[in-house]
Amino acid sequence: MLDVQKDMPAVAMAIDRVGVRKVKMPLWLKDRTNERQHTVALADLTVDLPSSFKGTHMSRFVEALETWEGKISYRAVRDLLTSIRERLEASSAQVVFSFPYFVRKKAPVSGVEGTMSYDCVLTGELDASLKPRFSLEITVPVMTVCPCSKAISDEGAHSQRTLIHMLLRTDGFSWLEDFIDIAEASGSSPVYTVLKREDEKYVTEHAFAQPCFVEDVVRNVASRLLEHPHVCGFRVQVESMESIHNHNAIAVIEHNYEHR
Amino acid sequence: MLDVQKDMPAVAMAIDRVGVRKVKMPLWLKDRTNERQHTVALADLTVDLPSSFKGTHMSRFVEALETWEGKISYRAVRDLLTSIRERLEASSAQVVFSFPYFVRKKAPVSGVEGTMSYDCVLTGELDASLKPRFSLEITVPVMTVCPCSKAISDEGAHSQRTLIHMLLRTDGFSWLEDFIDIAEASGSSPVYTVLKREDEKYVTEHAFAQPCFVEDVVRNVASRLLEHPHVCGFRVQVESMESIHNHNAIAVIEHNYEHR
Amino acid sequence: MLDVQKDMPAVAMAIDRVGVRKVKMPLWLKDRTNERQHTVALADLTVDLPSSFKGTHMSRFVEALETWEGKISYRAVRDLLTSIRERLEASSAQVVFSFPYFVRKKAPVSGVEGTMSYDCVLTGELDASLKPRFSLEITVPVMTVCPCSKAISDEGAHSQRTLIHMLLRTDGFSWLEDFIDIAEASGSSPVYTVLKREDEKYVTEHAFAQPCFVEDVVRNVASRLLEHPHVCGFRVQVESMESIHNHNAIAVIEHNYEHR
Amino acid sequence: MLDVQKDMPAVAMAIDRVGVRKVKMPLWLKDRTNERQHTVALADLTVDLPSSFKGTHMSRFVEALETWEGKISYRAVRDLLTSIRERLEASSAQVVFSFPYFVRKKAPVSGVEGTMSYDCVLTGELDASLKPRFSLEITVPVMTVCPCSKAISDEGAHSQRTLIHMLLRTDGFSWLEDFIDIAEASGSSPVYTVLKREDEKYVTEHAFAQPCFVEDVVRNVASRLLEHPHVCGFRVQVESMESIHNHNAIAVIEHNYEHR
Repeated sequence: MLDVQKDMPAVAMAIDRVGVRKVKMPLWLKDRTNERQHTVALADLTVDLPSSFKGTHMSRFVEALETWEGKISYRAVRDLLTSIRERLEASSAQVVFSFPYFVRKKAPVSGVEGTMSYDCVLTGELDASLKPRFSLEITVPVMTVCPCSKAISDEGAHSQRTLIHMLLRTDGFSWLEDFIDIAEASGSSPVYTVLKREDEKYVTEHAFAQPCFVEDVVRNVASRLLEHPHVCGFRVQVESMESIHNHNAIAVIEHNYEHR
Repeated sequence: MLDVQKDMPAVAMAIDRVGVRKVKMPLWLKDRTNERQHTVALADLTVDLPSSFKGTHMSRFVEALETWEGKISYRAVRDLLTSIRERLEASSAQVVFSFPYFVRKKAPVSGVEGTMSYDCVLTGELDASLKPRFSLEITVPVMTVCPCSKAISDEGAHSQRTLIHMLLRTDGFSWLEDFIDIAEASGSSPVYTVLKREDEKYVTEHAFAQPCFVEDVVRNVASRLLEHPHVCGFRVQVESMESIHNHNAIAVIEHNYEHR
Repeated sequence: MLDVQKDMPAVAMAIDRVGVRKVKMPLWLKDRTNERQHTVALADLTVDLPSSFKGTHMSRFVEALETWEGKISYRAVRDLLTSIRERLEASSAQVVFSFPYFVRKKAPVSGVEGTMSYDCVLTGELDASLKPRFSLEITVPVMTVCPCSKAISDEGAHSQRTLIHMLLRTDGFSWLEDFIDIAEASGSSPVYTVLKREDEKYVTEHAFAQPCFVEDVVRNVASRLLEHPHVCGFRVQVESMESIHNHNAIAVIEHNYEHR
Repeated sequence: MLDVQKDMPAVAMAIDRVGVRKVKMPLWLKDRTNERQHTVALADLTVDLPSSFKGTHMSRFVEALETWEGKISYRAVRDLLTSIRERLEASSAQVVFSFPYFVRKKAPVSGVEGTMSYDCVLTGELDASLKPRFSLEITVPVMTVCPCSKAISDEGAHSQRTLIHMLLRTDGFSWLEDFIDIAEASGSSPVYTVLKREDEKYVTEHAFAQPCFVEDVVRNVASRLLEHPHVCGFRVQVESMESIHNHNAIAVIEHNYEHR
């Protein structure tokens, strides 16, 4: 049978990245409490392609996934990168997994437990150096109370749900929970899945005692990430769903952050 | 050239609705201040198909759009329905336009003006009775302050952006602005595009003086719609982006509302 | 501590549905091969509220989820509905779970296996009759080859990915796989996650031998659902991402279908 | 009234970008046929903030929009950037407008006209050098016919809608239509809003005579952009909604492209 992919292309130009996008699949990982956690991921898998080949062999990406252990960890993702690089006879390989990560969290007063979900993205790359590089994205919702509204009003202050998005380049292992903790300590209050009345009173009062702008939140997160031993670069974006507007407020700090 | 669409189908079954979806196009309309307003809509256009035809002629839907005046009004949409029904030789026709509607709005104290945007959907249907039927959807963002949080906390109360979605079956003309006014009067406060500091103080204090649950908001809207002379049925859904949770709260009231 | 929710509301109107939306959580279920399958769901949980109460107790919904076994099955969802109805002291309860469902599928010639993902929604309701009612939504992607394009062209025919969305009211247990099979047999060809070259040849030729319009697909699905012993009503929508247009084609057949 | 924004922040760190997101508004522009075209945009407006200020003054962004002429052109956007930079007393300003752009397009044989819509993003930046920098994103749908499927099958070949996304850094004025033309010439066929039967025959045969992988498309676009006099850097991504799979195929080429 013809192998059109091996033909010479009409335009002899190298391609930076070619592959499959949005393959949905069940995966698992271990969390900080050492529990095995099941989740569902969207996977993007790509390689580079030299100027001498017309096409890549797309089915081999999914075959690499199928023979893989299906675990989200630095070691397992490195194994997948190695397998893709070899099967596709490529110089560099990249995988991106987008998935929700679940953490059990206690309400602050009653101690009632609930499951929180955080959207995460793990990106791994492997090139001819055979030294894998990883980056991590985590989105953490928090509550913010507006300092201006509080200072100028006789009563109250507007508050809202605010999303902290961290893009992290790391040079060693850290639990996702470590970064979630950093983000949840950086707004007016964490948010929770279950809050009894005594918890709601606590969260409200605690948040009103610590009003913060998106500017404050992004600085709080950035200053904590600067002190983290395994973070070598980051982009932090804070987006607040302003309750007095129909648009959002955002603030961004980048540090030693090379876009890809 | 063959006209496969006119063949007998393998399965002789009538089709309720067949046509095109998500045709994006510029449209215009008149607002309450009698200004000509330009917007962009997604259009879905469908007809029924008897059991004796294999297919409809999809290109005729877009041809009907092309010869149409491109105005969102009851009369113009009725003309489009008539044109589609005739071109497609159908018994019934339906059009759905989804578009943002813009309203100039003054900040409550400074009077500074800004443009607010409201997502709207106009659905029109025409069957053999030749009497068109219309329904209207409008989504209005408001601010809600939680009455429970306010009552139990020593200071403050959580607030959030809350979306009021009204699906209305009407038997006469009304301005979109009338329904927007109803929704904006039914939460703790309207939201605005521009607020100077004196406005933010007013909005905060005003909202805290009128705390309401999603349950209060949905009842406020429903009771006002019941009194509206041209509303004969409705479904109101209120969804609040709770600032203390990562999930939302909702409340729904339906009245004389026939789903389609 | 005050219980504001038990206050009399300002507007004494019953609320059809009030509760929480978009709670993300890990769940599991059993598939036709009797394997335990892990997935992730978005949950909406609601009850009705009489005109005499200002608000419902939102935290009890999540507490009901937390003490539940977390399994998607008719029996387990009925247990959850019973628990919600009791905890919230409500007359009726509704739960909606949206989740991907995974099925192992063999390529048609090589037999290579891959994981397919299908978006599903299970809705359960329980009212004072204590007899639960269920409905099921499944979205199945297939390939369609255009019969008109094939008949009039000297070579080829445009094809595209087409989504079959089935909303089913059932009166007995059926495997999700049964409905997926019905949908995959109703287009020009099923789609696959892994296809080797010999499979791609087979799928192309098989699809070109069975060209079908969205009208054909919706009739094929509807006629098969009419013969299913446990389907008592349905709405089938077929949406094709036409490769020659930037808009989609759709066809809808409803049968004994009561909207809610 | 207090101006909390001017306070010293707790963490003295400069912020790269702070402002408002997703302000929806009507805008207009001129197209290549010199027609005035109305559209609707989502606007993101940001500035930098030195380490010595706690917050920026968010309302001034919307005030800048309100006094602006509301036209999408290099000159008008430069004026807006200048106004934002001054009002916010900032060193650098950035605006991002996302909007659909409409082009009238004739069917290839019948000559029937229809309106095509292309999603565009214009980003403008102005820093202390007072020399604005612009980048442009355009997404163009085309049809692709698979060369492998065609070569190995006795009949037919799978085809699909494919999205070409171009991110362009330019150093002079070009019409959006120039880039749309480049993209539409780079797949198996352009797509159209209206096609009569004779057009559908032409498009099918034309596309089957020019089968191409995503790899071919991305190289075709990249080689043409390299020859464009005003393009100094780009990222081209081609994503094909494979009709035989439920996932997509992608290919990316970057050239002299500095991410931001």
